[in-house]
Amino acid sequence: MPHALIVHAHPEAKSFCNAQMSEAVRALQAQSYTVEVSDLYAMNWDAELNRHDFTHDVEGPFKPPLAQEQASKSNTFAPDIAAELEKLRRADLLVFSFPLWWFSLPALLKGWVDRVFVRGTAYGGRIGTFAEGGFRGKRALLLFTTGSLEEHFGPGARDGELDVLLFHIQHGMLWFCGFQVLAPVISFAPVRGTPEARQQQLGQVRLALSTLDTRPIIFG
Amino acid sequence: MPHALIVHAHPEAKSFCNAQMSEAVRALQAQSYTVEVSDLYAMNWDAELNRHDFTHDVEGPFKPPLAQEQASKSNTFAPDIAAELEKLRRADLLVFSFPLWWFSLPALLKGWVDRVFVRGTAYGGRIGTFAEGGFRGKRALLLFTTGSLEEHFGPGARDGELDVLLFHIQHGMLWFCGFQVLAPVISFAPVRGTPEARQQQLGQVRLALSTLDTRPIIFG
Repeated sequence: MPHALIVHAHPEAKSFCNAQMSEAVRALQAQSYTVEVSDLYAMNWDAELNRHDFTHDVEGPFKPPLAQEQASKSNTFAPDIAAELEKLRRADLLVFSFPLWWFSLPALLKGWVDRVFVRGTAYGGRIGTFAEGGFRGKRALLLFTTGSLEEHFGPGARDGELDVLLFHIQHGMLWFCGFQVLAPVISFAPVRGTPEARQQQLGQVRLALSTLDTRPIIFG
Repeated sequence: MPHALIVHAHPEAKSFCNAQMSEAVRALQAQSYTVEVSDLYAMNWDAELNRHDFTHDVEGPFKPPLAQEQASKSNTFAPDIAAELEKLRRADLLVFSFPLWWFSLPALLKGWVDRVFVRGTAYGGRIGTFAEGGFRGKRALLLFTTGSLEEHFGPGARDGELDVLLFHIQHGMLWFCGFQVLAPVISFAPVRGTPEARQQQLGQVRLALSTLDTRPIIFG
């Protein structure tokens, strides 16, 4: 059975973003996926990449990529990172579930990437990048809400083009590590919509997560 | 006298990134700037946007933009946020100093933006965006190091174009809040260079920070 890991970051359990994540879980389970959720706020995830990421002694000045490469060889990641790497190993599909804050990931989710996409395992060292990335063979997609209306995105629009805004995540993080990246699933400005509009948005999420095999591939 | 705020995020005090920040401080002081540094790792900055950001009671489900807008009216930000807002108020120039991690800000610095660029003060509510943003009249620039070589960036290059990668920061965070954004100051892959090459890179930083008035404007 295929397995999915959803990494979710929103501070409010009653948020639309949380409802959207739950909808995704149900849609994946309905297609026989097993699903695991890393709910970063609920887990009190530590966003700070530091020496405490390693159980080996980091000698001399701390150089994160070198320390990660060593830990990838000696299996000396701190337990919180080791647990996420094990979840990633099991997963065929990775979903980032979040509110788009400042046209990027919330800090907790960025800190998950900083600490878990480690050199020597996710990329680099004896592992390559992109088509040779450490997570090649797996798929990934972004599932997020925006504060801005849909009309604020696009060529010449106020906030710019989403492809450009998301490039650092979809190309720079996911495809860089070898994930095949599917088109993002976006609910625009749910906070400004009616309850009926939000139900429609949840329906779109359900449909998208039920038709992954025909979803456009952005990178990979 | 002009005043600069440098927000710095690197876990190692002996890093090149830290030396680069110190070089920037000296270059600005030599031009009669007063300089303040928020060293996020040294401050144990909390990257997690949450209810604890406010001293007022957040009633019902937590909606970050609304809570920020209320706190902007009632002056009820937690002390760590209020201190950074006061530093921003004083500053004519904002510098983000950091290693480019995953083509974006380290999580601690992203959490600084999430928590300090608050609705109702930085943008939104009675404040506009871009030319009408809350920090209009101030300048900003990025000062960072990369892991990748310079040749890996550009049209058709492995990592993509820097303008595209940085758009979410320079346009989506800084210009969105009204800062005039100057061309970024970048040291490519210092970890791979010789000590002499790194000294040259520090010289380039000193020159850039000494000639801000003629530096190209990217946005604003």
